Amino acid sequence: MDLDSYFEEFTRRDWQTLENGVVRIAVIGLGEFARKRALPSIQDTQFCEATVLVSGSPEKAAHLASTIDVDRVIDYEAFHAGEATEEYDAVYVATPPAFHREYAETAARLGKHILCEKPLAATPEEAEQMVDASIETGVDLMTAYRLRTEPAIRRMREAIRDGVIGDPVQIHGGFSTRLLDHIGTDSWRLDPDVAGGGALMDLGVYPLNTSRFLLDTDPVAVCAETTSTGPPFDRVDEHVAVQLTFPDGATASCTASFNAHPDSRLQVLGTDGQLLLRFPFGGDVSQEIVIEHGEMSTRYTGPPVDEVREEFDYFANCIRAETECECDGEEGMTDLQIIEAAYTAAETDARVSL
Amino acid sequence: MDLDSYFEEFTRRDWQTLENGVVRIAVIGLGEFARKRALPSIQDTQFCEATVLVSGSPEKAAHLASTIDVDRVIDYEAFHAGEATEEYDAVYVATPPAFHREYAETAARLGKHILCEKPLAATPEEAEQMVDASIETGVDLMTAYRLRTEPAIRRMREAIRDGVIGDPVQIHGGFSTRLLDHIGTDSWRLDPDVAGGGALMDLGVYPLNTSRFLLDTDPVAVCAETTSTGPPFDRVDEHVAVQLTFPDGATASCTASFNAHPDSRLQVLGTDGQLLLRFPFGGDVSQEIVIEHGEMSTRYTGPPVDEVREEFDYFANCIRAETECECDGEEGMTDLQIIEAAYTAAETDARVSL
Repeated sequence: MDLDSYFEEFTRRDWQTLENGVVRIAVIGLGEFARKRALPSIQDTQFCEATVLVSGSPEKAAHLASTIDVDRVIDYEAFHAGEATEEYDAVYVATPPAFHREYAETAARLGKHILCEKPLAATPEEAEQMVDASIETGVDLMTAYRLRTEPAIRRMREAIRDGVIGDPVQIHGGFSTRLLDHIGTDSWRLDPDVAGGGALMDLGVYPLNTSRFLLDTDPVAVCAETTSTGPPFDRVDEHVAVQLTFPDGATASCTASFNAHPDSRLQVLGTDGQLLLRFPFGGDVSQEIVIEHGEMSTRYTGPPVDEVREEFDYFANCIRAETECECDGEEGMTDLQIIEAAYTAAETDARVSL
Repeated sequence: MDLDSYFEEFTRRDWQTLENGVVRIAVIGLGEFARKRALPSIQDTQFCEATVLVSGSPEKAAHLASTIDVDRVIDYEAFHAGEATEEYDAVYVATPPAFHREYAETAARLGKHILCEKPLAATPEEAEQMVDASIETGVDLMTAYRLRTEPAIRRMREAIRDGVIGDPVQIHGGFSTRLLDHIGTDSWRLDPDVAGGGALMDLGVYPLNTSRFLLDTDPVAVCAETTSTGPPFDRVDEHVAVQLTFPDGATASCTASFNAHPDSRLQVLGTDGQLLLRFPFGGDVSQEIVIEHGEMSTRYTGPPVDEVREEFDYFANCIRAETECECDGEEGMTDLQIIEAAYTAAETDARVSL
C-alpha cells in the first residue's frame, strides 16, 4: 500500500467545482473571531467578498469597515428591516449561539444564504427552526465547521474510507484551552443561556463532529461526565468527557476543557492501522499526520492552511455551483441533539440512545 | 520549573531499601509469559532466584528447568500436597486467572508469599478470598502490575504529585493488540470462564490501574461500552471503551482491543500542563515521555528497562525488608471490582457507582 499517495496534493480542494463567481457577504456580529479571524480570511478567499458589516456598535464597525475596504455598515435593527439587501447575497452569522436563530431567520426571509458559526444554535429546537426556515425559503444553510475544509481532516477521511486502517474501532479526541487566559469572567461563553452549554458546546463539538465526519456515520448512544470546580465555571461544564457509540460498535472517547493546558489531538484506531493528528482543532497550524498500517508508518507534515478561508470558498461553491453542502444545518442540528443527549446522560448517569 | 530534574537518575529504584538477601521462587504455570518473559527476568534480578517449577507437564518443565539451572520440578498435585516447601520462599502464579485462587490459597496455607499475575483472579469474589487467605496466614500477596515498577510511570507519578501539570483533569489511555496474530482461537483468553473477561480484563486493566496509580485515588463511577464482532470474540469483549470518574471530577477515557492495530499510549492532561507517554503498556521499550508545562516542553527518552525484573525485585524488597507493597492483593481486587462494574455498566446502559 502506497501510503504516501494520500498526501500528494495535500491541500487540493476536492470539493471545488466553481471556476469563477463571487458571493457578497454580510458579516453579522463583530466579535473577536469575526474581526481577527473571519474577515481577514474572507479577504483572502477566491469567491467571497465582505460587503456589509452588521453590528450593535455601528461606530466601531465603521472604523473597522474603513480599514478593510467594506462600504456598508448597518445595525441589527436595520438588518432585520431588510436594509442593504441589494448589497449582499449571503450572511455569515458570528454572534453568540443564542442569537443565531433570529439572524438566520431574517436572512432566510430575505432570501439570503446563511453560513452560521458553530454551534449552530443554543438548543436543538432553535437549530431545527433555522433548518425549517432555510428549507421553506430555499436558501442554503451551512454550519461553519472549519474542520470540514481542513485538508488534513479531508485526507484522513479519504484514507479511512479506502480502508487504510481497516475497520475503525476506537477514536480518542481532545480539545482543551485555558479560557480565562483569553477572556474575562463576564464572557458569554460562561453563560449557558447565551452559549447553550460549556466546554462540550464550544470545544467538544470539534472532536464530536470530526468523529462523525471521519466515520461517515452518526452515533447511536452517548454517555458523558461533566465537571465544574466552581465560579466562574459554576453555570457551565468546565471539563467534559463524552463516550459515543457508533452503529457498528466503534466508539469515540472525546474530552474538552475550558480550564486545562491547551491541547488538541486525535487518534483513529482501526483493525489494521491507525491515524494520528496533532493539533487538529486549534486552528491554522502545520498538521502532523501519522498513518500506521501494519509495520509501516508514514509521518506527514502538511503546510499550514487557512481553514476559515477554505470554509468560505466551500460555502460559495455550494451556493454558486449548487453542490451539496456536507455540513448543512441538519449537520449542525444533529450535533446539538447529541450534545443535549450528552448533558442528559451526565445528569442522569445513564447512556442515552440517539 | 526545572522539568529536566524529574528525569535525572531515571531508572532509580526509589522503593529499594534492601541491600542483600534472596527470595527463592516457585514458578507456577509455565505458559509463554512465564517461560519467555518472567523466568529470564528472574535470572536477571538482584534478589530473586527461581528454584522450583510447578507445571501440569513435568516432562516439558524438566527440559526447561535444565536449561535455566533450576533443580526441582513438581506437578500441581505435588504443589498442593506441600512438596518441596523447603526449597522456595514465595510463589509466582502465572496460570490463567480462573486458577489463581487455588494456587494462592495453597501457597498461603504453606506460609509462602505470593506474586500473582494480573488480573488477580477471574472475579472480585475470588480475589477477595485470596486477600483473606493472605491476611489469615500473614503472607504477602502482590498483584503483578509490572507498570508499577516501570521507571517512566514512577517518574510521571512523582511529577504529577509535585504539581507539575497542576490538577489532573483528563486521562486518555489505550492498549490494543491483534491477538489472533499471536494466539490460536482456542486460547483461554477468549474463554470468559477462564479469563474472567476479554479485552478489558486482559489489556484494559493496564490503563485502568495506571490511571488509579498516577492519580493516587480510586474512581467513584464508571460507564463503558463493549463490542464484539462475532467468533472467535463472541464470548468476550473484543473492543472496550471505559470512562472513569474520579472523586475530584477528573476523568479517564480508557480503551482496549483484542483486534486492532497494536498500540498503547497515555496522556494525562492537567490544568497547567500535561504528560504524554508513548508505548506505556507494551513492555520493555524505550519510553518517550513528553512533559508540557505552559510554554515549556521537555521530551525525554529513557533507556529500556526490564520492568518484570524490577517487579520481582520490588516483591523481594517487600518481603525481606517488610516494606508496604503498593500493589497488594487489595489493589488487584479493586481493579476487578471496577472491571465488574464496567461490564455491568455496558450491559445496563448506566453509569455504575463504585
